[in-house]
Amino acid sequence: MRVNAYAAPAAGRPLAPTTIERRDVGPNDVLIAIQYAGVCHSDIHTVNGDWGPQPFPVIPGHEIIGTVAEVGAHVTRHRVGDRVGVGCMVNSCGECANCRNGDEQYCLDGTVFTYASPDRDGTRTQGGYSTHIVVDAGFVLSVPDSLDPAAAAPLLCAGITTYAPLRRWGAGPGKKVAVVGLGGLGHMAVKLAHAMGAEVTVLSQSLKKQEDGLRLGADHYHATSDPGTFTALAGRFDLIVNTVSADIDTNAYLGLLTVDGAMVNVGVAPSPMSVNGSLLGSRRVLTGSMVGGIAQTQEMLDFCAEHNIGADIEVISADQINEAYERVLASDVRYRFVIDAATLA
Amino acid sequence: MRVNAYAAPAAGRPLAPTTIERRDVGPNDVLIAIQYAGVCHSDIHTVNGDWGPQPFPVIPGHEIIGTVAEVGAHVTRHRVGDRVGVGCMVNSCGECANCRNGDEQYCLDGTVFTYASPDRDGTRTQGGYSTHIVVDAGFVLSVPDSLDPAAAAPLLCAGITTYAPLRRWGAGPGKKVAVVGLGGLGHMAVKLAHAMGAEVTVLSQSLKKQEDGLRLGADHYHATSDPGTFTALAGRFDLIVNTVSADIDTNAYLGLLTVDGAMVNVGVAPSPMSVNGSLLGSRRVLTGSMVGGIAQTQEMLDFCAEHNIGADIEVISADQINEAYERVLASDVRYRFVIDAATLA
Repeated sequence: MRVNAYAAPAAGRPLAPTTIERRDVGPNDVLIAIQYAGVCHSDIHTVNGDWGPQPFPVIPGHEIIGTVAEVGAHVTRHRVGDRVGVGCMVNSCGECANCRNGDEQYCLDGTVFTYASPDRDGTRTQGGYSTHIVVDAGFVLSVPDSLDPAAAAPLLCAGITTYAPLRRWGAGPGKKVAVVGLGGLGHMAVKLAHAMGAEVTVLSQSLKKQEDGLRLGADHYHATSDPGTFTALAGRFDLIVNTVSADIDTNAYLGLLTVDGAMVNVGVAPSPMSVNGSLLGSRRVLTGSMVGGIAQTQEMLDFCAEHNIGADIEVISADQINEAYERVLASDVRYRFVIDAATLA
Repeated sequence: MRVNAYAAPAAGRPLAPTTIERRDVGPNDVLIAIQYAGVCHSDIHTVNGDWGPQPFPVIPGHEIIGTVAEVGAHVTRHRVGDRVGVGCMVNSCGECANCRNGDEQYCLDGTVFTYASPDRDGTRTQGGYSTHIVVDAGFVLSVPDSLDPAAAAPLLCAGITTYAPLRRWGAGPGKKVAVVGLGGLGHMAVKLAHAMGAEVTVLSQSLKKQEDGLRLGADHYHATSDPGTFTALAGRFDLIVNTVSADIDTNAYLGLLTVDGAMVNVGVAPSPMSVNGSLLGSRRVLTGSMVGGIAQTQEMLDFCAEHNIGADIEVISADQINEAYERVLASDVRYRFVIDAATLA
């Protein structure tokens, strides 16, 4: 099946319309007619070559919402017409310790990511900036009908990326959670932590987005450009979710944690972190997290439906992708671009 | 009450006999006739001035075992003649969030450490290289009679320092625990992790102490000077307890952890750690730990009695302290010096 898509032809080159072949629907596969695809900062890093050489042309997109157009003979959990989603991965071995533990994103045999990744049949995966995709049913999520499909697209990456550490480290009533950075990931972290019942603080470079932050569910908002912030909030937080992928002063943030508090990086900064060991002495935790497993992603979607949570989005047509990339790099989006796949048809 | 002791007169100067005044036994106090005092590496760091200026003369010693000689009017939990212990701290506010949570070592009002610390009455504390000590009953541990008193002394610091992270991070059956460094702390970590039912691996610079390690309870022993160790053991451990206070390649050790695995530093290296953020991405945890609270220290002593665990020690007389310090610095002790307080009388 030949379908329309937008691809990066080479590192750093503008994306352009193309067509690609999607595989035949196998017995365990689901063919999805894509409705929306979110634009994640990772897409830009990948096609710019920031994360190493890629198998160009690359079709990015791992925040995919659509409807089931066809299912393979063995597929029982999805039916034609169902609203479904696909996130950052489309397959894994299913047998290693991590897969058996529901952590397919850490498959010891190699997770198959949604694009630019070697698939189990030897081809390279191509992502969601496209009209259709064929995905193993085990990696297709059910998207509750109550969710707005365009606003739900970013849940598949930005949502699960922030939901997983909030759950892992016990965000909830009585807990003080700080979210560093109010971008695509950060705005989801604020919404989710608030819905979990935590007291939420945004730590952003400036107070520029303060009004937004409070509207999204934050209880407090502080500028990290003000050194007084780090004095005033010392020892305050049970959990810091750092959504910033730039180099930051890790020690300054560790100092904001309580005993047993955890700082979780959901991005990776360009440089190694310099960590003062004495800050860890009071059982403070420095850790990271990468998306979440399939079962937890489903749990997150159901949680979002229950709490009526979607991303704050700006829907664009496919021919605006390159402009959108520029605006993401300039932090000029509140808070996620979502491509309307109808404009690819 | 004037008592004999050994004190460091100034930074880096040899310890020498002296006498000091112990306070009158207050209503909540316990007077302890000291039998044994362990020699901890911290004692040496402190009197050498490695950790900043100290209020000399300093009497070190925070691994104290003795018998109760007198109790204050309000003391009910200890009786004259009981065998008791005192560890790294002798008081705290008792009212802050950390104290209420049983973490007196992180008292927000300032933990009173056993020596060289401002006491709540304005004096400076003096430690266990002495014949007697007066301590608030809340900081006096009950030492089960079945424990050898000399071998029990190091439990009060080396024991709790390693017991706490083993418990916090779930050492037990089915868990793979690595202990980095086989010294005073490391040999306790091996004994305790083994008694908890974990599979224990020692990671030591060389194989020099391999026979010892296996005798102490390790299942495996690897030399970290062999780069092959880090390849062979990649992704292996649920928990790494790093007892080494020197600078090490933190990233190399983080690479040995499973998903959700934790590396706990119980010492603090001289330089900041350089940490590769991508290693934390699979939810690996880098953290630290400092001794343990009073309730957990009692739990540890009871655990050691149940499992017949003491430190491997070399008992010395007080006049051998300076020589013992030299040998600790040369790693020439298996695995803890303990001063026989009778030689101070």
